[in-house]
Amino acid sequence: MRDNRWSMTPFGKSPKLKNPIFIEGLPGIGNVGKVAVDFLIDELNAKKLYEISSYTFPHSVFVNEDNLVELPIVEMFYKKGNGKRDLLLLGGDVQPIDEISSYEFSENILDMVQKFHCREIITLGGIGLPDIPRKPKVYCTGNSKKIIDRYKSDLVSNNLYGVVGPIVGVSGLLLGLASRRHMEAISFLAETYGHPMYLGIKGAKEILKILDKQLNLRLDINKLDKEIKDIEDELMKKTEQLSEVTKAIALKKLQKKIGRDIEYIG
Amino acid sequence: MRDNRWSMTPFGKSPKLKNPIFIEGLPGIGNVGKVAVDFLIDELNAKKLYEISSYTFPHSVFVNEDNLVELPIVEMFYKKGNGKRDLLLLGGDVQPIDEISSYEFSENILDMVQKFHCREIITLGGIGLPDIPRKPKVYCTGNSKKIIDRYKSDLVSNNLYGVVGPIVGVSGLLLGLASRRHMEAISFLAETYGHPMYLGIKGAKEILKILDKQLNLRLDINKLDKEIKDIEDELMKKTEQLSEVTKAIALKKLQKKIGRDIEYIG
Amino acid sequence: MRDNRWSMTPFGKSPKLKNPIFIEGLPGIGNVGKVAVDFLIDELNAKKLYEISSYTFPHSVFVNEDNLVELPIVEMFYKKGNGKRDLLLLGGDVQPIDEISSYEFSENILDMVQKFHCREIITLGGIGLPDIPRKPKVYCTGNSKKIIDRYKSDLVSNNLYGVVGPIVGVSGLLLGLASRRHMEAISFLAETYGHPMYLGIKGAKEILKILDKQLNLRLDINKLDKEIKDIEDELMKKTEQLSEVTKAIALKKLQKKIGRDIEYIG
Amino acid sequence: MRDNRWSMTPFGKSPKLKNPIFIEGLPGIGNVGKVAVDFLIDELNAKKLYEISSYTFPHSVFVNEDNLVELPIVEMFYKKGNGKRDLLLLGGDVQPIDEISSYEFSENILDMVQKFHCREIITLGGIGLPDIPRKPKVYCTGNSKKIIDRYKSDLVSNNLYGVVGPIVGVSGLLLGLASRRHMEAISFLAETYGHPMYLGIKGAKEILKILDKQLNLRLDINKLDKEIKDIEDELMKKTEQLSEVTKAIALKKLQKKIGRDIEYIG
Repeated sequence: MRDNRWSMTPFGKSPKLKNPIFIEGLPGIGNVGKVAVDFLIDELNAKKLYEISSYTFPHSVFVNEDNLVELPIVEMFYKKGNGKRDLLLLGGDVQPIDEISSYEFSENILDMVQKFHCREIITLGGIGLPDIPRKPKVYCTGNSKKIIDRYKSDLVSNNLYGVVGPIVGVSGLLLGLASRRHMEAISFLAETYGHPMYLGIKGAKEILKILDKQLNLRLDINKLDKEIKDIEDELMKKTEQLSEVTKAIALKKLQKKIGRDIEYIG
Repeated sequence: MRDNRWSMTPFGKSPKLKNPIFIEGLPGIGNVGKVAVDFLIDELNAKKLYEISSYTFPHSVFVNEDNLVELPIVEMFYKKGNGKRDLLLLGGDVQPIDEISSYEFSENILDMVQKFHCREIITLGGIGLPDIPRKPKVYCTGNSKKIIDRYKSDLVSNNLYGVVGPIVGVSGLLLGLASRRHMEAISFLAETYGHPMYLGIKGAKEILKILDKQLNLRLDINKLDKEIKDIEDELMKKTEQLSEVTKAIALKKLQKKIGRDIEYIG
Repeated sequence: MRDNRWSMTPFGKSPKLKNPIFIEGLPGIGNVGKVAVDFLIDELNAKKLYEISSYTFPHSVFVNEDNLVELPIVEMFYKKGNGKRDLLLLGGDVQPIDEISSYEFSENILDMVQKFHCREIITLGGIGLPDIPRKPKVYCTGNSKKIIDRYKSDLVSNNLYGVVGPIVGVSGLLLGLASRRHMEAISFLAETYGHPMYLGIKGAKEILKILDKQLNLRLDINKLDKEIKDIEDELMKKTEQLSEVTKAIALKKLQKKIGRDIEYIG
Repeated sequence: MRDNRWSMTPFGKSPKLKNPIFIEGLPGIGNVGKVAVDFLIDELNAKKLYEISSYTFPHSVFVNEDNLVELPIVEMFYKKGNGKRDLLLLGGDVQPIDEISSYEFSENILDMVQKFHCREIITLGGIGLPDIPRKPKVYCTGNSKKIIDRYKSDLVSNNLYGVVGPIVGVSGLLLGLASRRHMEAISFLAETYGHPMYLGIKGAKEILKILDKQLNLRLDINKLDKEIKDIEDELMKKTEQLSEVTKAIALKKLQKKIGRDIEYIG
């Protein structure tokens, strides 16, 4: 295997960050984390720091609105806090799906943020419900009582035990692996509808309210509502496309198996 | 791939053990082995020796009763025998599920116990039946006639051939791989109900009776019954939670496939 | 793992190529790309440059018309342009099916063509439709506006956004990965029937018309029609065989699981 | 990954073999190849040369008639020819099931037989039919016209093209990979019933007749019939066991997924 299974391309000069907080939001249940972090990146006008791609990401390209192809990527951004604490923000198209890649990815991300002397991690995600929640509740869990106490408020319940089982993927692993590095980490999980076509905008909004208040981000709530509408439209359009091509892809799977009388068995 | 695919973290000073017996009980059919070894660890007040985690374990964290996350781990304990033989005990949350990882894990465990000059191995597991057995029978098999003869008694049948096919996973591999290292190994397998939600407490109890007698462990049988009740309650609660989140996880699987119009095909 | 996971065997002396264009057409949706490139290789009497095999290709051999076995391979050919630009042509029996292998294969191919100072890439593929298209439309996308503008014509629509989702496999990855190497790349995708038994000859023909015109290849259209008839017959015969052996293969899968009471679980 | 992913343990002193023929018969369609080679090993009283195990083999052990466990293995035997050519015989419990492992295994075997200056390979297998064939036909294919001509006879049809598609697994790969090493290789494939519970004894018998005649092995045909009866009984018994434990294994799969609220997703 090549060494470039993981590729981390830096953008511009590496900034000096003071005591930054790292916030992760990648695709997952209801895409709650992704929607929230994408909004933060746009709204705070964060600057790109790293572009991450991997041979473990989907072996496909996405056609964008300019009719140009894009490889699936994950991006790390930063935002200087101007008095408040600096932020590191991780968003993107995908997250690794198998066990080993998910652990490797999470360790790589922790290596990266540790270089900026980051010692506090926030991961964002969703809790899938059988119905659309009218007012999604937000729960939190973490890797130390201290960080949970610090982020405790009326807006968030820290009584997650029994509500959800294991937290699967990068949002969960970052918490567990950070613990070994003596980094404090917390996860905010918003209720959302567990249907694959549903986008958990409402849940993301509840999480953003919490972050806005706790981190004093001064997000424009009206703009937030509008922005979310745009994101929703764009994501919905993409999601619709996706469902249309699902058949073609399923066929490609079968088709692929046929290359000149050869059948994959493995 | 990183070298830390397998991580074995020692706890405290390494003890000197004399002629220890190694007993393994990890999740498997009816969780019989896990229940039995977890009881032994608690009851004998065994000391933690190693904490084992791996990139091949599930890429998820579990939320515990204190609302804190925990990575899935496997733990090695030891118990000084006070005149009797010392014990090494292996319990945990998971076992590797693919072929290569299962072999690697088993070899690593054998490396570890060989450092303590261990030459005798006992693995514990279940035999899945279509119904709940009223009085579960215990069978044994091993990698030498000698060890089977040594552990023969009225409580255990050594006529396993034809009762069960291959023994899958770490409980089986440890026997086969130990043979090459000239270590004697035996497996006790108790009948249990083969339903995924069923916990083979009864089967574990039958195995514990055998170990108690053979290894002269002086387990308090009354306490054993009570303890098992507690374990049952705790495990059942966790199992219920699990079934509730199964849907959410299945949805997450689908959801994950949707990261920005990208479809996993591999 | 062995280093010879990828094997690239050169044929004859390495030619000097001036500013070559690289055209890829491997098995995929409707085998459109494969049919088109195979025709080009035959019709242009291209010379074999490399034979590529891989441990990631199917672990099987194909029985040919001479009753001899052949390993699944991918082949790189070249054609001197005689005044026009030289061509590099990639065709074959298969393409890697998992993520990592697909990335590695594509990077290896880009390494190879870069040795010939190639800076322009054309990949060919199909868009699966629910019905057989009477006159298949051809779409294009690319990794730069420049190359799309260069290949724009009445015969091809560059409005692919919304028509297809992600482009899966080598045809897509080559575009995305070439971008990082500052190589321009375009993909022509022809509509075809998405049924696994259907061969997208018509779609391939539409793509060949475009390449003939744009690259001034002077393909004999009559011969093209005839040749395509032959390819169709041969491919159809192979496809029929395949469907007949599908059952036997499915059985082999099951059979394999039975080697002496051993069950694969992984 | 460890270097001992593949383990080849020699038995006794390495013999000097003159121009040996290598015959392979591993589990596959109808286990035709396995039955034939196992008979040859017994009947010719061949001597064990190597025991091969692998982390890519099933992670399980089999309980034998003595109630002792055995790891799944593949074995290489040899038989001095006493004037006739020497034989190398490969039989065993399993063959690797994924692409990379199947290629690696086949290359390792070729390395091994080349050390004995072997230049001729015979692989044995089955062709799965929808019904039990009354008198199974035997077909052959190979990697050169020469070897096919050499083994041509009334008993075997060399018209395999169109009868079977790809030859999947080690029996096929050995032919294709041997070709690159300038070793001649032929495969004899006997018709058999494609049902997973069926053992292709009849097909194996037809192949043994051909080998007996071609290689002048002087097999006792009466003994052959009796021996085959024994093998059939033993294999059938094992197969029955297997089907009984299939449910338990399926349950174990599910059970395994439950280790302490943790769900495998990958």
